[in-house]
Parts: sequence; structure tokens; C-alpha cells
Amino acid sequence: MPALDADDVRIFSGRSHPELAADIASYLSIPLDPTYCGTFSNDNLFIQLGASVRGRAVYIVQSLVPPVSDHLIELFMMLDIARSAGAREVHAIIPYFSYARSDKKDAPRISIAARLIADLLKTSGATHVMTMTLHSPQVHGFFSIPTDPLTARPLFVRHFQQMNLDLSKSIVVAPDFGRARSASMFAERLNLPVAIAEKTRLSDTRVSIDASINRQIKGFRHALVIDDEIATGGTMIELCRVLVKNGMETIDVICTHGLFSGNALEKLSAFPEVRMIVTTNTVPIPPEKRVPKLTVLSVAPVFGEAIWRNYRRRSIGDLFTFGRDEEEE
Amino acid sequence: MPALDADDVRIFSGRSHPELAADIASYLSIPLDPTYCGTFSNDNLFIQLGASVRGRAVYIVQSLVPPVSDHLIELFMMLDIARSAGAREVHAIIPYFSYARSDKKDAPRISIAARLIADLLKTSGATHVMTMTLHSPQVHGFFSIPTDPLTARPLFVRHFQQMNLDLSKSIVVAPDFGRARSASMFAERLNLPVAIAEKTRLSDTRVSIDASINRQIKGFRHALVIDDEIATGGTMIELCRVLVKNGMETIDVICTHGLFSGNALEKLSAFPEVRMIVTTNTVPIPPEKRVPKLTVLSVAPVFGEAIWRNYRRRSIGDLFTFGRDEEEE
Amino acid sequence: MPALDADDVRIFSGRSHPELAADIASYLSIPLDPTYCGTFSNDNLFIQLGASVRGRAVYIVQSLVPPVSDHLIELFMMLDIARSAGAREVHAIIPYFSYARSDKKDAPRISIAARLIADLLKTSGATHVMTMTLHSPQVHGFFSIPTDPLTARPLFVRHFQQMNLDLSKSIVVAPDFGRARSASMFAERLNLPVAIAEKTRLSDTRVSIDASINRQIKGFRHALVIDDEIATGGTMIELCRVLVKNGMETIDVICTHGLFSGNALEKLSAFPEVRMIVTTNTVPIPPEKRVPKLTVLSVAPVFGEAIWRNYRRRSIGDLFTFGRDEEEE
Amino acid sequence: MPALDADDVRIFSGRSHPELAADIASYLSIPLDPTYCGTFSNDNLFIQLGASVRGRAVYIVQSLVPPVSDHLIELFMMLDIARSAGAREVHAIIPYFSYARSDKKDAPRISIAARLIADLLKTSGATHVMTMTLHSPQVHGFFSIPTDPLTARPLFVRHFQQMNLDLSKSIVVAPDFGRARSASMFAERLNLPVAIAEKTRLSDTRVSIDASINRQIKGFRHALVIDDEIATGGTMIELCRVLVKNGMETIDVICTHGLFSGNALEKLSAFPEVRMIVTTNTVPIPPEKRVPKLTVLSVAPVFGEAIWRNYRRRSIGDLFTFGRDEEEE
Amino acid sequence: MPALDADDVRIFSGRSHPELAADIASYLSIPLDPTYCGTFSNDNLFIQLGASVRGRAVYIVQSLVPPVSDHLIELFMMLDIARSAGAREVHAIIPYFSYARSDKKDAPRISIAARLIADLLKTSGATHVMTMTLHSPQVHGFFSIPTDPLTARPLFVRHFQQMNLDLSKSIVVAPDFGRARSASMFAERLNLPVAIAEKTRLSDTRVSIDASINRQIKGFRHALVIDDEIATGGTMIELCRVLVKNGMETIDVICTHGLFSGNALEKLSAFPEVRMIVTTNTVPIPPEKRVPKLTVLSVAPVFGEAIWRNYRRRSIGDLFTFGRDEEEE
Amino acid sequence: MPALDADDVRIFSGRSHPELAADIASYLSIPLDPTYCGTFSNDNLFIQLGASVRGRAVYIVQSLVPPVSDHLIELFMMLDIARSAGAREVHAIIPYFSYARSDKKDAPRISIAARLIADLLKTSGATHVMTMTLHSPQVHGFFSIPTDPLTARPLFVRHFQQMNLDLSKSIVVAPDFGRARSASMFAERLNLPVAIAEKTRLSDTRVSIDASINRQIKGFRHALVIDDEIATGGTMIELCRVLVKNGMETIDVICTHGLFSGNALEKLSAFPEVRMIVTTNTVPIPPEKRVPKLTVLSVAPVFGEAIWRNYRRRSIGDLFTFGRDEEEE
Repeated sequence: MPALDADDVRIFSGRSHPELAADIASYLSIPLDPTYCGTFSNDNLFIQLGASVRGRAVYIVQSLVPPVSDHLIELFMMLDIARSAGAREVHAIIPYFSYARSDKKDAPRISIAARLIADLLKTSGATHVMTMTLHSPQVHGFFSIPTDPLTARPLFVRHFQQMNLDLSKSIVVAPDFGRARSASMFAERLNLPVAIAEKTRLSDTRVSIDASINRQIKGFRHALVIDDEIATGGTMIELCRVLVKNGMETIDVICTHGLFSGNALEKLSAFPEVRMIVTTNTVPIPPEKRVPKLTVLSVAPVFGEAIWRNYRRRSIGDLFTFGRDEEEE
Repeated sequence: MPALDADDVRIFSGRSHPELAADIASYLSIPLDPTYCGTFSNDNLFIQLGASVRGRAVYIVQSLVPPVSDHLIELFMMLDIARSAGAREVHAIIPYFSYARSDKKDAPRISIAARLIADLLKTSGATHVMTMTLHSPQVHGFFSIPTDPLTARPLFVRHFQQMNLDLSKSIVVAPDFGRARSASMFAERLNLPVAIAEKTRLSDTRVSIDASINRQIKGFRHALVIDDEIATGGTMIELCRVLVKNGMETIDVICTHGLFSGNALEKLSAFPEVRMIVTTNTVPIPPEKRVPKLTVLSVAPVFGEAIWRNYRRRSIGDLFTFGRDEEEE
Repeated sequence: MPALDADDVRIFSGRSHPELAADIASYLSIPLDPTYCGTFSNDNLFIQLGASVRGRAVYIVQSLVPPVSDHLIELFMMLDIARSAGAREVHAIIPYFSYARSDKKDAPRISIAARLIADLLKTSGATHVMTMTLHSPQVHGFFSIPTDPLTARPLFVRHFQQMNLDLSKSIVVAPDFGRARSASMFAERLNLPVAIAEKTRLSDTRVSIDASINRQIKGFRHALVIDDEIATGGTMIELCRVLVKNGMETIDVICTHGLFSGNALEKLSAFPEVRMIVTTNTVPIPPEKRVPKLTVLSVAPVFGEAIWRNYRRRSIGDLFTFGRDEEEE
Repeated sequence: MPALDADDVRIFSGRSHPELAADIASYLSIPLDPTYCGTFSNDNLFIQLGASVRGRAVYIVQSLVPPVSDHLIELFMMLDIARSAGAREVHAIIPYFSYARSDKKDAPRISIAARLIADLLKTSGATHVMTMTLHSPQVHGFFSIPTDPLTARPLFVRHFQQMNLDLSKSIVVAPDFGRARSASMFAERLNLPVAIAEKTRLSDTRVSIDASINRQIKGFRHALVIDDEIATGGTMIELCRVLVKNGMETIDVICTHGLFSGNALEKLSAFPEVRMIVTTNTVPIPPEKRVPKLTVLSVAPVFGEAIWRNYRRRSIGDLFTFGRDEEEE
Repeated sequence: MPALDADDVRIFSGRSHPELAADIASYLSIPLDPTYCGTFSNDNLFIQLGASVRGRAVYIVQSLVPPVSDHLIELFMMLDIARSAGAREVHAIIPYFSYARSDKKDAPRISIAARLIADLLKTSGATHVMTMTLHSPQVHGFFSIPTDPLTARPLFVRHFQQMNLDLSKSIVVAPDFGRARSASMFAERLNLPVAIAEKTRLSDTRVSIDASINRQIKGFRHALVIDDEIATGGTMIELCRVLVKNGMETIDVICTHGLFSGNALEKLSAFPEVRMIVTTNTVPIPPEKRVPKLTVLSVAPVFGEAIWRNYRRRSIGDLFTFGRDEEEE
Repeated sequence: MPALDADDVRIFSGRSHPELAADIASYLSIPLDPTYCGTFSNDNLFIQLGASVRGRAVYIVQSLVPPVSDHLIELFMMLDIARSAGAREVHAIIPYFSYARSDKKDAPRISIAARLIADLLKTSGATHVMTMTLHSPQVHGFFSIPTDPLTARPLFVRHFQQMNLDLSKSIVVAPDFGRARSASMFAERLNLPVAIAEKTRLSDTRVSIDASINRQIKGFRHALVIDDEIATGGTMIELCRVLVKNGMETIDVICTHGLFSGNALEKLSAFPEVRMIVTTNTVPIPPEKRVPKLTVLSVAPVFGEAIWRNYRRRSIGDLFTFGRDEEEE
């Protein structure tokens, strides 16, 4: 792999996830350029990019993790700086695009915020977006600039393949209808059947699981439950409870975006049947939260490789040799 | 209901579905304004609006039925005429928005055509869109102008409620994962359980149904299969075959957009177990295709009422008294 | 004054300053419409407007006070909701536009964030902006939609006129060059001379005052120091120290936007020579911060009157009878 | 002529005219990249570009021949794919731009469709357009992106020069006022006089020729009638009748865009006085239509050369050595 | 005719043609609102609109007569003021749109300035344009906002009808190919034949007339030569010379836009055969230039009536009872 | 310094200041490409760029000196030509941006013309702007395309440093509040104190100076009065009068943009105390105006160097070694 032209490329990180940005830069064998961030006494943000961007390809890494609003405004400002300082291309690298969840109007007079944020990113100066595992694949269509929604699925598939588990009594479980398609793509890779739970949402944090799942998992002993993101873990905890009650002996919990707010990790770990909680580092997980059952796979090689291929005009999809994936251009 | 100000409103129909346009106008007690359409010898389209639109609220009714491309270009031209002739508002009323199916990139280098068409509608001059039952609710977010995706669900619910059927052995069946949520909203209205089939698409016209459906429907005798649209009917026919094989005695087929291409209606009717095929008139169905088992519900009152409420600035959602529906602003 | 057409107008408040929004609504004799705000467990914001906006004139009140980023995203979402739900006009009422301070590039590769935010407001759906006392009058030109920068100056002038003070030894003092012009407009109204201090900024919170001020204030005993905003109060405190040292016996501190972060109010009050601290309620000041020397003038009548005049198509400037003011259209 | 950088260039063809696209690619010594086209059962089009376009110069060849609407939508989708998959430049190569005929409002409430289509091409993602012989030169101004309207005139001039005809009794005839200027540019090249017929259009297919042409052609025996396009050939046939009646012994019919709908070619051939019908291949002419009198000149070298010069940043006009032509930048 | 709502309408004039603006206002029975114009010592223009425009329909009258650039910038500024001060609609009334002549690229690397100016008018804030007799009807398509190109033809037709002339030996003459169509529409109204001259342009001011005109006018004694505009009059003078030499005894010269630069009027008047020079007041003609043979017809009723109809949402075309005209919506 | 790639760069000059354009080209060791300008008889401008721009970086030099409107329209047309002829980048080099003075609304219903012109430049095709010493630094924020406001300050500083003057009794004087900040940056470079005059503007050409300046300059004998531009010189002359009256023995007048309209230079020269009038050549000064006391510093090296650095993607700020300057990216 020929190196990037370091003089032609700039990579900056906002304050949301400097470790991941550094890992991506490291994968690309280029230095992470400095960014100076601060907050004025009136709570205005201050940002300064620490290297000349004139005529260059600029990559700005910002994950929409809490405090989300600060990280968004910071991202808007960084894009604006790059654009108005004459960058040739301005790439927004958004490992976790939190607002992808606001993708439809299921109540009157609410915002399809994912579309709004997509528009604001363009107004701010982004000419290209890279992100990962959007809540629904349609969110791709909210962007009017070229956008590559990458996937962590190959990471998870490889992870389980390398463990050489006996999967004869295993089934992949989607926690709700919306995850059915993507769970089934994961199941296909491991040659497993799939079951779909459906939840009734009682509040932002409480759900109940419909009984139909019981029939679907009859006879299986090992569940791989896969979701796109886990925040409070309410759905997942309730689902584990139901699965265990219906005979599951081992549960592996998988999610791309591990927000694990509150004590989600502790609660999940507390199930003896939960063997592993596998996630990625699109969201930073502080050491104190890292329970023993937790495995964090790094997406830095995925983003790094995608950046390299984008820069070298190679097809992004050829990279993933495990079969067809969402994005291959 | 106070009448519209006939001098302030214009309603035109393209060539796709003049009967529905006339029904909507009739619901609103206003005349359908004339449109002159033609095709030049070089296959260019010719359109002329037959009434002054200056400063008025203009409603243009065009359903994206075959020939879809002609109807799209015709629609673009009608919007352009209204806009450039000084209309105050230009509403595109699109009962069947066929390209809603192209809502994501599931292969490299294809178009998310639903987003593209949404953008072209805006460029052509539309300031507001009304449409019905988009293939996925996220398509709403593809539009950058105010858009009201209406629903035919209340029509279907009322239809079955009025029949006073014994529903004790009935189950609602979604033909694939993508229809799960909307099938379950329909089931909820009739207080029925729901089962989700999943198909493997072998080609544009051939599919196979996964076996998991068998377990889900065990014990039920009457299936209400609900889909958003039926074209060749390949999925539906295969699904009926599977349902019958697994013990269904009565099947009611329901879909909003009844394209029924080829001999879809004949094939469905041929099942003795299929009792009714219930659809709407978002797509015109010629008399010769209307098999005895077919029931066509008119959406003219839905669009008419929505236009009236939009014009009179009333909330659109208050209308539907059967519970919460997708769109209520 | 004829009332607004309550059915044609909607006024909503974000979470930044509901009291001021309620006061403005009250001035206009219309109810403040409900807004439902919340934060999801992944820190995404949730907003819902609680009244139909279709075809109406919508006023959204949000002051950019801490947490500024949350209030900005909230404002963007509220504007987006109003626009996409078919509002006729969407007015952003921003009593304190904090980013007005970021109005130029005084270092390489920073953002002229005031321009950026102005563009984002437009993208989000605002069709008109009302704000107060921008840091520099040029910021007005950053907006591509009609914008009315109102002024609190008449409130301050009236306040001091009503006190019937002996002003024979009084001088108006601008705390730096940037405030010179606006201080001199205030001085002119009270028929007073003006002096201009200049500070050297050592950090975001520490400054030193140039000695030239000493000569300018020689012989005066009462200073009216007027600034657009006070956050930590660093400049103001240092200036008071210098003024006192140079013979000032009474100081009245005046500012439009009283952020008073940290213990700014306590420190200013601690000067025996400081008689009054006069500010407005563009920024909410909690009861526990309200020191005895503090006077808070309400801008609700200014915004209320401006909204009324805008709605009734009256010139906004005619209102202020004390002479020419910044904005009179 | 140095070759194009094949890895940096992509050339695709829609379904309108793959032969011409292949000839252009062949002229440029690059392969024609594959495009996969299809039509879904609901009449939606499906397109996939068969080679990675990321960061490349992409040329998309589509002629607006019947079915025009399908070819337009197909073109919009191809442009959209190239743009959203990250192409560096997206060139629409439109040999026959049929809607150029809709270039003015000669009736109320019709569309200046040429302008509309130009705008839709931009919205779809085109960054540059190449086309040939627009119906009027002003149509160039409808495009807001750089556009090169090429000409076939040098091909026609060379064709007649190589025949070494005796032109002493020859006159160039324009079939109507709108063609006067361009006919006179052709005549100038061959050093011939020009006459202008004027038609009264009775319907889309029937016209009558004004008598004034009789005086203008008195004494000439050989007419070169030149038009931009021939569809039904109604005008041309009527004109030939008049010319013959007024003494013309030999007629050569020339047109850039030979649509020849219906049996236009047979009818023209039926005149014994008509010696040659010379056209180009901007519109494909199936073998069964190719009458003996028909000569088809290929525009592939013109488009090929123009693409090469555009890519190599050479002036396009220098190519045509026969004198000044419409477009020389 | 019901009066306009004077409080809802504002009409302003730039410095180009205040008399015409006043006449239009007078036709509408509303006052011409004051505009304050000036030039700063650095040659910047200064403009202030003298009446509140908030929420109103604003009409700005500016003819692009010399000094054209000053009048253009003045117009841009007036539009910008109206837009940014909150006008509801901003109408640019441009009786003479000089740049309509720059409507195509007949040399490399020149500007299609008519399109550029159309775009700049939109950027400046115009929402609607009214103008008269564009050099070519295609220029209409350069505007992306609703545009009404009015015509003075009915004025000219009525003028000659009222004179009750014997027209048995009369012919209408177009001075070049570009005027052929519009001359023939004028001829049709008076039931006269038409001849078309063609000029070879030697420089901006010198032309020669092709001999073919001689045959066309044989036997006629009275020519009505009609052009869209006359500046130096070089073409017209040369044409008159040729007409007289070929037997014309009486010539009436007609043009919509009478710029008459230099001593054009004197030179035309000097022909004894020239009986009348009929023009309109789209361009102001100072008293000292008004030769006895000159007749100036006022377009104020045409613009006034069109404004009134636009405001009252009536079709503009119904007004002109002499037959079909260019613009009738 | 490696040379520019002459084949990849084009530099054109409008009619405003060809000498400066030639000097910039000469600094860059590339030829100034020819531009053909003219004025038609109807006062329309004509411009043609004399070298192919396809795919190239194009620099267009135009200073907004009288006649400003003509030079603006000329500039718009040149940008439009470059853009529509396929230039890769279109840089507007505007040494004197006259409309920067119109940067705020200090009266109702006037235009913030600097913002308007910035928008029109973008619409016309500019992708980047370079200019010098804007009237206020906020004007930078009016541009939505990357903009580099350069400074002449280092030229002035070096000029005075090289003279090795005794500056112990010297003070820098700003002629009004608006110039305070920039005068103080100049003073800082020369290690001098600063005084700020304030004027009351009586008309466009007459001002009076407030008395407060007297106290500020007490004890100093040499004033360096620095302004951004001098037109009639009214302010400067009045200020010199006041300075002399208050004991100044030597005055050096400095300004970036020397318009010197009327007899400004003679009047300033007439003061015996005025030693030097130092300006730059952003505005051309004809030989007959060049009084002996006038020194004109060339900005060609500043613009030339900035263009070179922009083209070579080097930071522009590094160039100026005398300390931090306004623009360093």
C-alpha cells in the first residue's frame, strides 16, 4: 500500500474522540494535525486548525458522542474553517452519527433531524461524509453530498469465526423489526438462522418484548443478539431476560455503537448467560467502564483503509473479502 | 365544511390518472381545470395548463404509473409552468410515488432514485408534496420541501370493521421484514396478532419464502396479508401458496398500490382460499382487469380532505379518528 | 393597538429562556404555545412543537445562553419543524446572539462563526431574524435573510433620564475601541462627553487597561461605563479599578447582555463606587445571582412591539421616539 | 495526439445510442465502460454503472431520441450515480438535445422545457454538457454549467467539397426564418447564395410554404436545403414540392438530427429530384430505414475530439480548420 | 377597474427614467414613492428607499439606458434593499433590458451577459421581472424567476390603424434575419406582406445590406421598417438608402427602444422619403433630440395595466384585444 | 521560488488598472493574457478573454476605482466568462474593494452593499477573492467563498523603518473610531503611542473633528496619520488643520487606497507641516496628480506573492516577517 502524500493531506480531530482519530492517522502513517479547542466565558466554542489546509484534502474526525450538541457545533466550525481557508476537499469522518435515529416523522411536528444535520453539514462546508452503520440504510439518502456509510459487520464476523465456536445450536436474534434485515445479513455470513424480537416501547428507557420470540427460538441454546447501538441497554436487558427464560444458555451481545450510558454494562454483565459483549470504538469507552466481558474492536483500520482508498480512488468495497457488504463503491 | 375559494385554487391533472383527479376536485366541489397534453413527432412532450394560475394555490395531480418516465417529465413540466407563470403555491399531489422503492444503496453505483426525484420535483417548482404510503417512512426525509405522506390504512381498517367478520382465528401477515412495522400497525387497529414472512429474492419477479413463517402462523385459519404495493404479484402468490400449504383456509390480500402488472390479478384470484383482494385507486385499474374478488377503495376523499385542510390551515391528522396515524400535522 | 390574529400566529420557546418568551407573548396578548423538549439516552435532543403551524406566522424565541450548543441545536430543530410542517413564515427571535462576537478572522484558520451560524439558521428554515445589540453592526450583513437587530439603548436612556441625576460631572466611558461608536451614541442621547478605554487582552479572562484613559477622564467624577455584554467581567472590573484610581467617585455599569459568569456580579458590587449595574433580561439571571445593586430592564416590550409591528407591516423604527436608532425599518 | 489516461477516465452509455458511444470511446482509444440497465415491474428504471468512478472524469453519452422520457430519466439517474459515487467531473454528452425546440413561450402557460431540462441536468449532477446543433443558439444560455454546443457543419461542408460538384446554379435554402442565419453560415462556406422559405404551420405535421420563396430561387437549378432536424419531414416534403414546381432540377437535403419518424425517408426519396439526403448519426437510424439516397456522417470524431481536447485543456475551436465556427473555446 | 390597495403597494424609481415611473404610478392612481440616490466621493452609489416596504408588494422601475452600468448597480441595490427590509414581493420593472442583445456565444470566451444579468437580478432579490420586447424571445428562458416580456406591438398596430392609410403598395421590412419573425407578426396584424433584409456587420456601427432585398420589394412603394431597437441607426440608415434606391417613396421607421445615440435621429430625418419615426418611451428621449418626424408612444399604460393585472391576479394577455400576442398569462 | 506553471495559469486585467495587473504578472514571471474590452453603442459592455481558460487557474485583476459601476459589471462578466468556459478556479483579485465602506445599516432601507457585491461576485463565478485592507475586518465575513484580505501595513512599516527617523516625539493618529484598532496595530509595529480623533460628518465631503484629540496629542510633535482610504480628503485636511493648531510640527499622511478625488493632493500638500503622503497603487494615480510629497508603494509584490503562495498551497501569512498580520492562512 503506497503511502498517502503527507503534504497533500490534513487530518484533524475534534474533542469527541482524539484516540480514534490518532489511530486512524497512525493507520495511514501520517501525523494527526493539531487542533486548538476551547470555550469562551460566554460558552461560545473556539476552534483553530493547527496546520495550513490551502488546496489540500482535509479529513475531520468527530464522533457524535455526548455532549452531542457541543461536538456538532465544533464539527460545523471545523468544516467551515477548512472550507473558508481554501481546502480542496473537506471530508467529515463521523464514526457515530447519533442523529441517524431521527429518520422519520412518527409524531406530528417533530424534526427528521438526521436530514437536518445532513443539510447543516453541507452548509458548513463538508464535501464528503464517511460514517458507520446508520440506524437505517435510507439515511444515506438524506445526504446531498457523496457519503460512504461503512460497516463493522466484517469485524464481528471475523471475531466469531476466529473463535471457532460450535454454532450448531446458535441463532442470531434481532432485537426489533428495524434490525431484522441487518441481523439476517450477519446471520448469513455465519450460516445461522435468525429470529426477530419486537419490543413495545413504554418510554425512552423501558420496553417490553413481544411473546412471539418464544416460538422462534425454540430449540436453540446460544443467541447472538445484534443491534446497531446500545445506550441505556433497556431493550437488550429485557431481551436477555426473555431469552434466558426461554432456554438460552449462552448469549453474545453485539453492537456497533456502544454508548453504554448509566450502568448498562454492569447490568448486562450481571447475566451469567451473557458470555461476551462485543462492540467497537466508534464511541470512546473509558477504562473504568470496561467490564471483563467487554471486547472492543477497533474501527480505525476500517476508516483508515476507506480514507486511503478514497484518496487513491480505489473502490472501497473491494477491501472486504468476506462477501458483499453495504457499500462497495 | 366551508368550500374552498374557487377563484383562488386551481387543480390540474396530468395524463396518468384523470379519473382520480376529477374525484378529488369533485370532493372539493371545484372544477378540474383543463390541461392540454400531447407528444411532438420527435417524442418531446407538450403540456399547456388551461387556466390562469397567477397568484393562486395550484394543485397538480399525477400518479407515477406506467409509463412512469413520461408521467414524471409531464409532472416536471406542469410544475415548471405553474411556478414560472407566477403561482403562489405549487402542490404536487402524487398518489403513487413509484420511486419510493429506490430508497437505499444496496449495490454499488446505483442511484437512490427516490432522493433524486425528490430533488428534481423541487427544482421543477413544487413547493409542497402530498403522497401516500411511501415504501419506507424514511423516504419522507428525502424531500426538502414540506411533504405529507398520507395513509390508506384507515380505509382498510374501516373496510374490515364494517364486514363484522369473526377474527378469532385471524392473523395479519407481513410479506417481508420491511413491511413488519406497518403490518403491525394495521394489526393493532384490528386487535390481531402479526406474523412476518421473509422472502429471498431470486430475480425481479421470482422469490422464495423462508420456512420460519410456518411456525409463526400455526393454529391460525385466516390471513390478512398486507403489502404496500403489488406489481407482478410474485411475492404475494408464493406467499399465498405457502400459507395455504400451512393450513390457511381464507386469505384476504390487501395493498395500497395495486399495479397488478401482467396477469397478477388472475393468478391471485385463482387461489380458492383468496377471498378478497382489497386495494385503492392510487393506480388506475382498467375495467377489463377488475376481477370479481377485487375491491377498490377510493383515496379521493383522503386527498381531497387533506387538500382542504392544508388550504384551510387545519391539522391533517385530526381527520382520522381511528387512532394515531403516521401524519398528523 | 389592534391585537394580533391569534389563530394566524404561533409563538414557541426553546429551553433557554421561557420567562422572556412568556413575557413577549403576554405583551402581544397571545398564549405561548407549548413545546415539548427532551434529551434521549444517547444525548440526542428531542423537540416537538405543540400546536399546528400550517400556513401560519411562527415566532421561535431562543436566547443563546449556556449551554449554547444545546440551545443552538434546539433552535435549528425548532426552525426545521416549523418549515417542514408548512409554516408561512418562520421568525427566529434571538435576544442574545452569542456568536456575534466571532465576527472576524484575527488569527489564521479560525471560523467567522457568526456568519456560519447565520447560514445554518437559514438552512434550518428561518425566514427572518430578530436579535438585539450585535457585537458589531457589520454582523447584520452576515445574514442573507431579513434581519432586525434591535437595540436596548432607549431603555437605558429612559432609565437614567427618569432618575433625574445631576450629570454635570458625568462622562460615558467605552471599555474599548470596538465600543466607541455605540458608547458615543448613548452619550449623545444624554448629552454627555465620551471617553474610550483600550484594553490589552492577556487571556480570555484577563486584560489590562491602557493609560491613555487617564487623561481623557480628568475632571469627571461620575462614569457611565457601557458595554454590549459582560461575562466574567474581567475587563469591567479592571476598568473600574482604573477609573476609581483616577478619581471617579460614582460608577454606573451598563450592559445589554448580562451573562455575569462566575462571581462577576459580586466582584463588581464590591466596589463602593459602583452604584448601579443596569442590564436587560436577554440573558436569564437566576434570583440567587441578583445582587442589590443590579437593575434588570425587560426587553419583552421591545421584542413584543417589534413582532407586532412586523406582523402589522409597520415601520419598526417609528416606535423609538428618542431620536435615530440603529434600525428603523 | 497523446492518449487519455484510461485509469482517470470513465465513459458510459445509456440505452439511447450505444453504437455512437462505442464509436466515441473507440476514437479515444479507451474501452466503453459497462452500464447495466433494466426496468422493474412497476416501470421504475434501474441503472448501475459498471466501473468505479471515484475521483475520475466521467463521460455519460445519451441522445434524447425516442422514448425521450425514459432516456431523460435514465440520464438523470446516471448523472446522480456518478456524482454521489464521488466522480471528480460529470460530463453529459447529449448528441441530440430534443428539448432545445422548446426554447420560448409562444403560448400562455407552457414550459420553456429546454431551460427546465438544463436545470434538471444540473440538479442531477452534471458539471459540464456537450451537445450538437441546438435549435437556436440562445439555448446555450439556458445552462448554468459550462456547455459546449458543437456543430456538424464542417462535416457537411467537407462532404460537398469532396464531391467536386459544379455549383454555379446552386443555392442554399433555409426552410424557415429560424434557420436563416445557420443556412447562411453554411452557404458562406461553400460560397453560395441563400434563400429563405417561410412556412405557416397548420398542425404539428402539416405546413404550407409562403410564395415569396419563388422569387428568391428564380434561375437556380440545384438546391441544398439545410435544416437542424427532420422528424415527420412534413416541412421538407412540402418545400421540395414547391422547389420542384419552381424549377429545381436537383435537391440535396441536409439535416443534423435525422429522426425520420414514420415514412419520412421514403417520401423524401420518392422525389426524383432529391439526389441525396445527408444527415449524421446523432440519432440512430436502423438498417431497415436506410434508403439508398441516405448518407449518414458520423459525429463520433467530433465528440471524441472535443472530449479529448476538453480533457487535455485544449481549445475546442482550433480543431475545425474550415473557418470560424460557433464554439471555439 | 378597482384601485390597487395603496397601503400594500410601493413603487420606486431609480435614476434612469423617473418620468416613465411617474406615468406608471399615475396610471395606477398611486403615488410614486421617493428614492434618495447619490454618489459618494469614491464613486460608490448610495440609495435609500423612502417608504416602508415591510410585507408589501414592491415595484422597482429601472430602464437600462446609459449609463447602463450605474443603472444596473442601482437596480441591484434597490432590489437588495427591498428584499432585506422584508418586502413580500420584489418586482423588477425593466422597460429596456439592454443586455438582451448578449444572448448567445458567437465568439469564444465572451459572456452570454443576458443570462448573467438575469442571475444577478435574482441574487439581488427580484422575485418577478417585467420587461418589454426582448431582442430574442429565448431570452425569456434565461430567467429563473417568473418573467413577463411585454410587447409594444399593439401600440404600433393601433397607431397605423388610426391613420387610415392606403396600404395597397405597402410592405413590412425586417432589417435582418433575427427580426424576421417579429416583423412578420406585425405585418400579419396589418394584413401586409413582409420582406427580410440581411446585413453584413462591418463593425459595431457600420453594416452593408445584401442585394437580395431588391427582388423582395419590387413593386412596393411604402415600407414600414420595424426593428426592436435603434442605437446609432447605422443599419437603419443603410437600409433606408437601399430602399430608396430601389424605388421606395415613403418609409416609416418603427422601433420599440429608441436609443438614438449620436445624431441618429437627424440622419434618419434627413431622408425626404422617411415620413415618420415611431418609437416608445422605454428609453427617455430628451426634448432637444425630438425631431418633428418623431412620434413617441407611451408604454406606461402597458406596464401599468400589467402591474395591475399581476396584482389582481388577472391574466395579462386578455388585455390586448388585437389578436394573440407574445405573452398572455 | 519555483515558477508557476505558465500553461496552467491565466491572468487577465479589466480596464481599471492594467499597470498593476502587469506588475503582478511580471512578479510571477508569467505573461499578462490579453483582454478585449469595448462598449457598444447602447452602452452595453463587451469583454472577451484572449486566451483559453479551460481547466486552468484563472486570476482576474480589477480594482473598483471610478467608474466603479462599469468596472464591477466588467468584473462580473469576466468571472462569468471564465466560469462558463470551464476554468478550474476563478480568482477575483480586487486590490481596492470600494463597497467595503457600505458594511452596515446606519439608516433604514439602505443596502449593506458590501454583502450584496460579495454575493454577486459568487453568482458571477468567483471561487476565491483576494483584496486589500477592507474598511472593517468584519467585511471578510460577507463572503461565502474563501477570501484573503491582504494588508499593506508591512509596506508602510518597512517604509518608515528604512528612513531611520527619530520617533521620540511621534504619535500615530487614527482619524476616527473605526480606524482605532488598525492604527494601533500600525503603532505597535513602530513602538509608538496612538491617539484617536473622532469626526462628526456634516456631509459626504465635510466633517468636523472633536476636541478630545487635543488632550491626547499634547506634547507630541510628529503625527503619523493613518487611514484606509482618502477620497476628497475632507477628514484628513480638517484633521491636519487641528493637529497643526495643537502643535504638530511634522505630519506624515498614510493611506492604503489613495483615491485623491478632486484636488485632495494639492490641498494636503499645501500644509507646510505635511512632509509625506504615503499611499499604495491599489488605485491608479495618473502622473499629472503626483505631487512631489507623494510616495506610492507598489502592492504588486504583495498580490504576486499571495497568488504564488495560493497556487503553491503555502501559507500566506508566513511571508510577512514583521510580526503577526491580519491574514496568515
